[in-house]
Amino acid sequence: MTPKISQFLAEKQPATPCLVVDVDAVEERYRALQAALPLARIYYAVKANPARPILDRLVSLGSSFDAASWEEIEMCLDAGARGEDISFGNTVKKVSAIRCAWEAGVRLFVFDSEEELDKIARHAPGSRVYCRLLVDNYGAEWPLSRKFGTTVESARELMLRARDLGLDPYGLSFHVGSQQIETDSYEMAISRVAALVSDLSAAGLDLRMVNLGGGFPIRYREDVPDIDTFGEAISVAMRKHFGNALPEMLVEPGRFIAGAAGVVSAEVVLVSKRGREDGPRWVYLDIGRFGGLAETEGEAIRYAIRTARDGEETGPVALAGPTCDGADILYERSPYALPLSLESGDRIELLNAGAYVSTYCSTRFNGFAPLAEHYI
Amino acid sequence: MTPKISQFLAEKQPATPCLVVDVDAVEERYRALQAALPLARIYYAVKANPARPILDRLVSLGSSFDAASWEEIEMCLDAGARGEDISFGNTVKKVSAIRCAWEAGVRLFVFDSEEELDKIARHAPGSRVYCRLLVDNYGAEWPLSRKFGTTVESARELMLRARDLGLDPYGLSFHVGSQQIETDSYEMAISRVAALVSDLSAAGLDLRMVNLGGGFPIRYREDVPDIDTFGEAISVAMRKHFGNALPEMLVEPGRFIAGAAGVVSAEVVLVSKRGREDGPRWVYLDIGRFGGLAETEGEAIRYAIRTARDGEETGPVALAGPTCDGADILYERSPYALPLSLESGDRIELLNAGAYVSTYCSTRFNGFAPLAEHYI
Repeated sequence: MTPKISQFLAEKQPATPCLVVDVDAVEERYRALQAALPLARIYYAVKANPARPILDRLVSLGSSFDAASWEEIEMCLDAGARGEDISFGNTVKKVSAIRCAWEAGVRLFVFDSEEELDKIARHAPGSRVYCRLLVDNYGAEWPLSRKFGTTVESARELMLRARDLGLDPYGLSFHVGSQQIETDSYEMAISRVAALVSDLSAAGLDLRMVNLGGGFPIRYREDVPDIDTFGEAISVAMRKHFGNALPEMLVEPGRFIAGAAGVVSAEVVLVSKRGREDGPRWVYLDIGRFGGLAETEGEAIRYAIRTARDGEETGPVALAGPTCDGADILYERSPYALPLSLESGDRIELLNAGAYVSTYCSTRFNGFAPLAEHYI
Repeated sequence: MTPKISQFLAEKQPATPCLVVDVDAVEERYRALQAALPLARIYYAVKANPARPILDRLVSLGSSFDAASWEEIEMCLDAGARGEDISFGNTVKKVSAIRCAWEAGVRLFVFDSEEELDKIARHAPGSRVYCRLLVDNYGAEWPLSRKFGTTVESARELMLRARDLGLDPYGLSFHVGSQQIETDSYEMAISRVAALVSDLSAAGLDLRMVNLGGGFPIRYREDVPDIDTFGEAISVAMRKHFGNALPEMLVEPGRFIAGAAGVVSAEVVLVSKRGREDGPRWVYLDIGRFGGLAETEGEAIRYAIRTARDGEETGPVALAGPTCDGADILYERSPYALPLSLESGDRIELLNAGAYVSTYCSTRFNGFAPLAEHYI
């Protein structure tokens, strides 16, 4: 938690649940990534947190943007980004969205299938396209591999088809999975990409870009390798596989930029043993899986939790949200321990929760209003 | 799909994705449940679908309401329900919510723990309270048992404590789990409740109410027992265990009332093999787990799907939503087959999808607007 967020929470005591993001911390993270990968162009993954103050700051820093929908493209344009700074990075796009994007000056589109490529050729003629490769997501706490990406053989065929369709066959992308803690994953993916680039070059097609995706991890409860470690591993792998013919590099960080810049402030609604003396205490918060903490599904993302009673004796707890839904349980198997004196009305904080929270939250499940947001 | 919904979709071709609910069908379901359980008072579980036209219709029919939050209570009051028609049915309530409810005339509160009971005693003095018992959720497609309910021993102690705290120890509740397809579950739960009622009576405390919860199933892809079968099983069990001293009975249907009254209309955004000839086709829709279909988590609720090409030759598919999230997969293991000719731009319908859709949907994940709703 940054000093600015601590001070804001202490002085304002905002109604809970709410998300508080330090926009200066967003800038720090952007600069840290830039320093770690000076040759890469940063396309902020808007989906991680599309709040206007974040987009404004990133526009002022010269960032580019990775958008998942026409609506996200509009948000970037509204914040002052130009069409040419935006990548339409969803492999699944409605025709109407492709058309709107093209009319707004977006010229960079991803695909991983023939039908999508044909849609882009027809509705965004002449655009730069890149093909998403299927890569192993081993090591990622929030994997993405089953749904996206195609095989090397198919990517080869589709890039040649892209040329035949009058598109600009610009490059290749992959995504090692979100909250990826293994640098190896990037190295393996880069070697696959390089082999295909070389193969296509022999076929007369010179690709100029590699999109390394995102996935850079942040600290939740455990330490993760720092961004310089990833930067170094990626640079070494790129040089090893591409030599002096380095292609343009793109990265699409979301969690890395917004995650560590934010805190969720919540309240304990109930502490209960519910008649089972041998079980853990159940601690119910005023935010749960449907109030924004969607990434606790399967207990994948395990937020660090701070209470005002830290330092006192603790005991094991299960943590759940405030809705009547049995699936609204945050942590039951992951070992969490909280102060024994914790009670209804206590405030708690979930740290490094600036990404993938505000937009996941439900419109009004169980009647609860969407998560309040403060950008400071 | 009701004729009214078919006609609306055909004539209006509303933009997708959207939910279309036939409010007359809501009324039919309410009446069918009333006929199956004539002695029970119906508390509609607002969380299933809190849309104003549904609440209005149910108020006009004399329904009572099961609310999960102060916000849901307000919705009921706005629709003309009286405080005395509302049960605050969430075992996890903020003090501020209890206070607002009490001031609005709500006098019926659930609890399953000592801390919650004490909160109710302090902030809703003299109210009727009922204790939620932990029961087996075997047979439910959307179980609720780990998070809610207490043991028989603890319930006994808490009901006596309720009296000592000046509350009205009114009854007991249980929930067999949502989309429960086994009538046995109700019978087992009723026998547990009856034993505790009898035990407390011996201790000088006469309970007057049994809340049977909800959970009544609707047809998705498979047939389910009809509501009369549940009504009969419940009536038989109640008579067996309570004899002539039948307590008041409450039921809290949500899915049963709203589910079968609605259809989700969606569009195919992409059909793709993504380079793997041996795998299924992937069909990407413009609605997924974060656009409202949250109950497809773990492929728990398996909606029946209708296309305009039904009758043509089919092949296996995996179904996914439109976001860049790898978790946004609807069905990958459940065997779904759709027409081989299906393509981008085709409209499809998810049947019996009127419950637990509109409110689960995210505020704007990946930039997508919340699900549009039409009540006809």
